[in-house]
Amino acid sequence: MQNIVERLLNGDRRALARMVTLIESEAPQVQRHLAELHQHTGNAHIIGVTGSPGAGKSTLVTQLVRELRRREHKIGVIAIDPTSPFSGGAILGDRIRMMELAGDPNVFIRSMASRGSLGGLAASTHDVVRAMDAAGYDTIIIETVGTGQAEVEVMRTAQTVLVVCAPGMGDEVQAIKAGILEIADIFVVSKMDKPGADQTVAELAMLLSLDQNRRQVQWRIPIIKTSAFKAQGLDLLADAIQQHYAYLTESGMIGQRAQRQVRSEIQTLVLHSVTRALKAQVSEEEWSQLIVEVTTRQHTPYDIAQALLTRLGLQNI
Amino acid sequence: MQNIVERLLNGDRRALARMVTLIESEAPQVQRHLAELHQHTGNAHIIGVTGSPGAGKSTLVTQLVRELRRREHKIGVIAIDPTSPFSGGAILGDRIRMMELAGDPNVFIRSMASRGSLGGLAASTHDVVRAMDAAGYDTIIIETVGTGQAEVEVMRTAQTVLVVCAPGMGDEVQAIKAGILEIADIFVVSKMDKPGADQTVAELAMLLSLDQNRRQVQWRIPIIKTSAFKAQGLDLLADAIQQHYAYLTESGMIGQRAQRQVRSEIQTLVLHSVTRALKAQVSEEEWSQLIVEVTTRQHTPYDIAQALLTRLGLQNI
Repeated sequence: MQNIVERLLNGDRRALARMVTLIESEAPQVQRHLAELHQHTGNAHIIGVTGSPGAGKSTLVTQLVRELRRREHKIGVIAIDPTSPFSGGAILGDRIRMMELAGDPNVFIRSMASRGSLGGLAASTHDVVRAMDAAGYDTIIIETVGTGQAEVEVMRTAQTVLVVCAPGMGDEVQAIKAGILEIADIFVVSKMDKPGADQTVAELAMLLSLDQNRRQVQWRIPIIKTSAFKAQGLDLLADAIQQHYAYLTESGMIGQRAQRQVRSEIQTLVLHSVTRALKAQVSEEEWSQLIVEVTTRQHTPYDIAQALLTRLGLQNI
Repeated sequence: MQNIVERLLNGDRRALARMVTLIESEAPQVQRHLAELHQHTGNAHIIGVTGSPGAGKSTLVTQLVRELRRREHKIGVIAIDPTSPFSGGAILGDRIRMMELAGDPNVFIRSMASRGSLGGLAASTHDVVRAMDAAGYDTIIIETVGTGQAEVEVMRTAQTVLVVCAPGMGDEVQAIKAGILEIADIFVVSKMDKPGADQTVAELAMLLSLDQNRRQVQWRIPIIKTSAFKAQGLDLLADAIQQHYAYLTESGMIGQRAQRQVRSEIQTLVLHSVTRALKAQVSEEEWSQLIVEVTTRQHTPYDIAQALLTRLGLQNI
């Protein structure tokens, strides 16, 4: 009987599924497993897909996976669901379409809940990518709902970031301005058969022409139109993704991205440990007591934070 | 010559403006000032306004401030701009309208950039609210762009959360499902004169009827239609805000919210100190070295994170 790490490295899907569950539940043995997997990683191309809710990301990912399968890739998909337990069901429903792919032994799909602390999600996404990479998936797609700061954090794990927008949503281009533009490598205008698609493309092109001067890079962000209904544009999109990967490797940018990603991962791990330590050392009764001291103005939140830092051993900060 | 804290407590606007700048720049003396201000706080009603980009939040806030001024409130506004340095200008432009209010001595408006670390924004927002509260502003409005996780964190500072959506944006209700519903106290359908407004109201009502069973609270979330163009609905909105505040105080819920807010503030302060300590103790050269050790697979990110924790003094976590 091999252990889970050996089975995962041999491509056993059940071992991979189990590892992802261990990562999500923050099982104590998981860091040891991940450390063993670490030396077997670094081979996958990691693609991020983001955009506003309703932009058609899940459908796009499904069709992109089909196109990449035609090109003989072995593909892992991490679909990150929003925090709300209430909405969970509905949005998971949108992903049922993706399940069509689940019969293919070269496709591994996993949903992850985004509940939990800020930063916690980015940390577990890193870990799941690491597990899939070690299991031999050469292309890993991370799909997030929304374009908030947590999603941008998650996207930093990716090497190639696709930002998807659908025409006719009113303010799709304004929404893109707010934060996500800096990390975009490829724009996708989904639903190209809807009215307004060409206008959205024109607005994006204008936005990019303003931005291109600021970025001092060689990569020109392409704008790809796709239609899920007619299954059009997916070959162009897959080409653009491969061109971006070639650009990253040839320019040496892939090393820079890896460095940025490793740094953010280490910082996230440190903060996550502190959060865990705080949880372990301060009981609910003590929290109630501390909070009363603040709300009755006996102590300030700054005093309490300082006292907790001292208790954790951080005397010199 | 009085010090900045005394002048702020006497209602000096320039002292307040200076304090906000100190908070934003994380000046070393600011925590001492804030600790002095702490005992003078707890009097303001804190209102959060959130919703997708383009929903008309800035216009709504401007008109809401006018309505609350008619009711003799003294109002502070914190407008949080998105991270991107590129988009900053454009979105600040939308806020020029708000500047009409700036001549009123009983209105204090301040924009804050949302750049910086996760959690950092929530911490500085807490601090700015504290400064405005101590300076005698009885109503403080926090406006955020977007509905991501960072914005939800910021909204936890508020006692009454308004979620704004405009009809005709395609997926406004779906966007609301994803995370923000749990923290909403009042829904606002802006642009009530646009086609589709009644349908948006109906969809929100349906969403709430599903959600109401899950929430075991007495407050029924109202849906208020407003028109910035015709300046309609603002009186109803101001009434709903005051009713919600009365509900919070009479039911004792206001204490529960304060507790939740204090706990999240203390945790944020602890993590923020750790981030600062990491920055101070690890030089750029050392980061480069550590990152190379990870990318060449000599060490895992877990090893490095553990070593850094040990260096910060956190041996037992």
